[in-house]
Amino acid sequence: MDLTSIQNPSFLKNKSIKQLEQLSKEIREFLIQQLSETGGHIAPNLGVVELTIALHKVFNSPKDKFLWDVGHQSYVHKILTGRAKEFPTLRQYKGLCGFPKRNESEHDVWETGHSSTSLSAAMGMAIARDLKKTKECIIPIIGDGALTGGMALEALNHIGHEKKDIIVILNDNEMSIAPNVGALHNVLGRLRTTGHYRWAKGEVESMIKKIPGIGEKLSSTSKKLKDGLKYVVSSGMFFEELGFTYFGPVDGHDFESLFENLEYAKKTKGPVLIHVLTKKGKGYNPAESDEIGTWHGTGPYKVESGKMIKPVNSPPAWSKLVSDTVLRLAEKDERIVAITPAMPVGSKLENFQEKLPDRIFDVGIAEQHATTMAAGLATQGMKPFLAIYSTFLQRAYDQVVHDVCRQNLDVFIGIDRAGLVGADGETHQGVFDIAFLRHIPNLVLMMPKDENEGQHMVNTAFKHSGPIAMRFPRGNGYGVPMDPELKELPIGSWEVLKNGSDAVILTFGTTIPMALEAANILEQEGKSIRVVNARFIKPMDTAMLHDLFKEGIPILTIEEAVLQGGFGSAVLEFASTNEYENVKVRRMGIPDEYIEHGEVDKLLEEIGLTKEEIISNLRKMVAQTAKRM
Amino acid sequence: MDLTSIQNPSFLKNKSIKQLEQLSKEIREFLIQQLSETGGHIAPNLGVVELTIALHKVFNSPKDKFLWDVGHQSYVHKILTGRAKEFPTLRQYKGLCGFPKRNESEHDVWETGHSSTSLSAAMGMAIARDLKKTKECIIPIIGDGALTGGMALEALNHIGHEKKDIIVILNDNEMSIAPNVGALHNVLGRLRTTGHYRWAKGEVESMIKKIPGIGEKLSSTSKKLKDGLKYVVSSGMFFEELGFTYFGPVDGHDFESLFENLEYAKKTKGPVLIHVLTKKGKGYNPAESDEIGTWHGTGPYKVESGKMIKPVNSPPAWSKLVSDTVLRLAEKDERIVAITPAMPVGSKLENFQEKLPDRIFDVGIAEQHATTMAAGLATQGMKPFLAIYSTFLQRAYDQVVHDVCRQNLDVFIGIDRAGLVGADGETHQGVFDIAFLRHIPNLVLMMPKDENEGQHMVNTAFKHSGPIAMRFPRGNGYGVPMDPELKELPIGSWEVLKNGSDAVILTFGTTIPMALEAANILEQEGKSIRVVNARFIKPMDTAMLHDLFKEGIPILTIEEAVLQGGFGSAVLEFASTNEYENVKVRRMGIPDEYIEHGEVDKLLEEIGLTKEEIISNLRKMVAQTAKRM
Repeated sequence: MDLTSIQNPSFLKNKSIKQLEQLSKEIREFLIQQLSETGGHIAPNLGVVELTIALHKVFNSPKDKFLWDVGHQSYVHKILTGRAKEFPTLRQYKGLCGFPKRNESEHDVWETGHSSTSLSAAMGMAIARDLKKTKECIIPIIGDGALTGGMALEALNHIGHEKKDIIVILNDNEMSIAPNVGALHNVLGRLRTTGHYRWAKGEVESMIKKIPGIGEKLSSTSKKLKDGLKYVVSSGMFFEELGFTYFGPVDGHDFESLFENLEYAKKTKGPVLIHVLTKKGKGYNPAESDEIGTWHGTGPYKVESGKMIKPVNSPPAWSKLVSDTVLRLAEKDERIVAITPAMPVGSKLENFQEKLPDRIFDVGIAEQHATTMAAGLATQGMKPFLAIYSTFLQRAYDQVVHDVCRQNLDVFIGIDRAGLVGADGETHQGVFDIAFLRHIPNLVLMMPKDENEGQHMVNTAFKHSGPIAMRFPRGNGYGVPMDPELKELPIGSWEVLKNGSDAVILTFGTTIPMALEAANILEQEGKSIRVVNARFIKPMDTAMLHDLFKEGIPILTIEEAVLQGGFGSAVLEFASTNEYENVKVRRMGIPDEYIEHGEVDKLLEEIGLTKEEIISNLRKMVAQTAKRM
Repeated sequence: MDLTSIQNPSFLKNKSIKQLEQLSKEIREFLIQQLSETGGHIAPNLGVVELTIALHKVFNSPKDKFLWDVGHQSYVHKILTGRAKEFPTLRQYKGLCGFPKRNESEHDVWETGHSSTSLSAAMGMAIARDLKKTKECIIPIIGDGALTGGMALEALNHIGHEKKDIIVILNDNEMSIAPNVGALHNVLGRLRTTGHYRWAKGEVESMIKKIPGIGEKLSSTSKKLKDGLKYVVSSGMFFEELGFTYFGPVDGHDFESLFENLEYAKKTKGPVLIHVLTKKGKGYNPAESDEIGTWHGTGPYKVESGKMIKPVNSPPAWSKLVSDTVLRLAEKDERIVAITPAMPVGSKLENFQEKLPDRIFDVGIAEQHATTMAAGLATQGMKPFLAIYSTFLQRAYDQVVHDVCRQNLDVFIGIDRAGLVGADGETHQGVFDIAFLRHIPNLVLMMPKDENEGQHMVNTAFKHSGPIAMRFPRGNGYGVPMDPELKELPIGSWEVLKNGSDAVILTFGTTIPMALEAANILEQEGKSIRVVNARFIKPMDTAMLHDLFKEGIPILTIEEAVLQGGFGSAVLEFASTNEYENVKVRRMGIPDEYIEHGEVDKLLEEIGLTKEEIISNLRKMVAQTAKRM
């Protein structure tokens, strides 16, 4: 069928299993073709084709509510709810969002992006439903990886206790972003191998009943034994212990099993967990045989060969530059260990994993634990490197405040994907980190101008006593020459990149190139603009700041981060504290709103973080100063 | 014995059980007497007397490492490690800290205050130990309440997977701060009632073995059956499933059982969980019979009667004023529900609980879940009130950013204990909230000048569409008259409390009285100081700000919160964005350091947040302005 003709999922109601199998095939072809052009989360979506169809056939969205945890597996749901035609714009500026989005469709009832939120939201919705005495089903769909996130466990605990009617679909795809970690994964592993739970339970129970005398002998513990028997063969016990009725494991690519279990769950009172086994990348060979998560989310690729289409000869990714420098130092300093919360591939820690497998720890999706574990390591004289995306560090804010910085411990936080990240959109933009870290006592925060300075900063971080963090952007370095020897940068030192006397730009990281370009263009107009690499966001170069304010030169701060409480504010605070008046300070950065998905350049244009705006601001500042004199 | 003569725990090694029982008695008497004068966390410490003694007898601190989760139960540990003589200064300025403190003793290896961090820290320490190939034992002691915190569950999962030698002491006292919540509590409840685990396991196993034929019949599932049998009688299965060896339940007041289990655990490879049952408040009648947590932490009390010594006729606590106003509105608006993460007593939600028991949810120590659950409720048209302490809201930062504010949902966050909290010290000061909330798009942030304005703000919050938060301090209101009718304050409106033309103070909440006093004193010197109640921290009253900057009056901002990224910075940002120059703005607030425990007044003095400093700043500002003119 023509998938773009789908208006809503009601057409599924009368389809036969054979027709649905045909539809699944067509959806897979559509996804493989579409995503080869736009990129996107291909493997997770290929894994949930039948599951999503089954959910929409058995339940009635939007009355019944699907909550897609993380949400990158909602493409099939988007197709079935009338959005197939928008796939050519997937993850592009003003195009289809790669995650559920409430303003896109009434079928998207909960927005996600970060992991492990769906169970808490489902609990909120279930409470609301029961207070309003309505009857809809509430169905969070959560992966085995997301289930290791602390807040998902908090929610499981609460849902089990309150015995709310919630149908949790555990989408166990044997591989979340990276191979899963943790004991919970072992539990799921055992579940996978134990066959059909309900069958086993019945068989064992009846077998035990037939043994003469056993009833009386165990009478004192009969209730417990009965409970126990439920768990003897399958290990659904983990969830049953928490108060859930467990169904599974169910073959997530078999419509008959899916329908049977979903219908049964619908009729069951109290919380239900359906354990569905799916295969990530199902139906597309390159993705299906992927072992390390390369096909989790991709850019464009060639359908036939499964080759990624990448710009040729691009410089190495920032993540790799940082991780490899950490490894280089770790090989000489055995105090250095690396920690990743489920992002060994994204953080390019493969080399570290290969060379020093005993000194790298993938803790699963568990940013809080990762951060405090780093603090624990540091109390014992180790030098932990925590590789974490800016947006996910948000989840460890309290651990940074309370455990790492309050105890003033030697933890080095590598803040990856700092600044705008583009296609992943508003849930993933790394724009809050300066504002949520700058006020934390003891913490040093820095960002390098290029990968050569980046490697020196990594070295500086490990030489430093106390907590220290380095932001670096998504994407690749510039391909600058790399110094063979690593240097130590004086903490809080800035660097003048270009001299000038009419105005000064204070900026760091990704916005340095546009600042330099703007300064060069203005030079042709006879305006002399100084450009400073303000690489230490905290502490700032107070000696240079005193000089600037004494000089009275107008100051323009630029940051790819939110303006409220950001670096520019730090400069204003410095001026106020030191009673410098009569100095013009203007700030450019990200305004007080969530920034949607789209190409980073488009987004920067939209918010006015461009060379042209810099030029326009500087012209104005210089003119005003001239007039006043 | 004279407890103040204890230098370190080595004296315990040769003591008989009888002598230790006598010591326990003396420690209890000491605690009951001492805390009656200073206040403190009496009930948790009375519960762990034998447990702490046993730990110090069996293990060798500081080589072996005790990590006290939350840490308010570390008083006995402090006594045994040579700090009894400092108890008269407990929780006072420059006195003994109420939590473990590394600079107090080498026996305090991990600092706590917030809950659920000990397991992650222990994992870090265990990794360090194994890399360094040393042999010490690592022993986190965690309560059943703290175990519901997501990060503790993340850590359990990781520890179980990595099979590290860590001995987790689960201090199951049947009541953390409030009666525990959650399915995990049910699991623990069942454990409590199943008798001695190892005994039961052995008996059932041998019994099963004697039944003829059963071995063959169950041969295909024998391994699983064997595993299953382990769980049949006891339900240690929950922890065993996660990879722990489970011992217990153990009577936490019986030295013989404690020694036996601790010694056994010491010899066991891999992670061990010892389930210890203790009685909170043990040995002091008023605390022992406490059902709701009144004796968790107290001020001074009379030993004989167990009566709290409180100032007579003090106005109601802020928490009560807020919660009762929420209740008043909830009785008329069924969309309003209340959520507390384990603080129904601290947040004074007892009346709400009594009147509207179906609309209040205590989710346990689970701030992340609480916040996202509130968001889930709001998507369904409900109006959730989240009662949370400022310091604990830190743990839900990402949930506020990603779930509540990004989706622009009607969640009302009541930020209790905002500002300095005093005796609980640096882990609990509510001083970061403005800095970590102000940059979040869509959020309204406010703080009332007194409890009458507070009730109007509560009303305003429920009338508002979108996320909104109200800070309010620890302690009591002022006893001002309360308007019978609730008003709605215009969002972003400030209020001039006192007119004046030489300078203006912009402040809110607790610092308003000292600002007014300072202004009155300066009036006698002929200086005319305006005082503004800047009750909306975000959005600010931009109309008034424009007027102030156009008027050119010097501005002093005052906030009981960190200066970096705070309210004063917002005023500086406003001036910069709107290109107001030549206006003096000075800021007073909390400097860039962690503020230790002590009486709030002492702390304010220490950091210069006093009437005298305000006066001195204003004098200077007015003089400078006069000179310039």
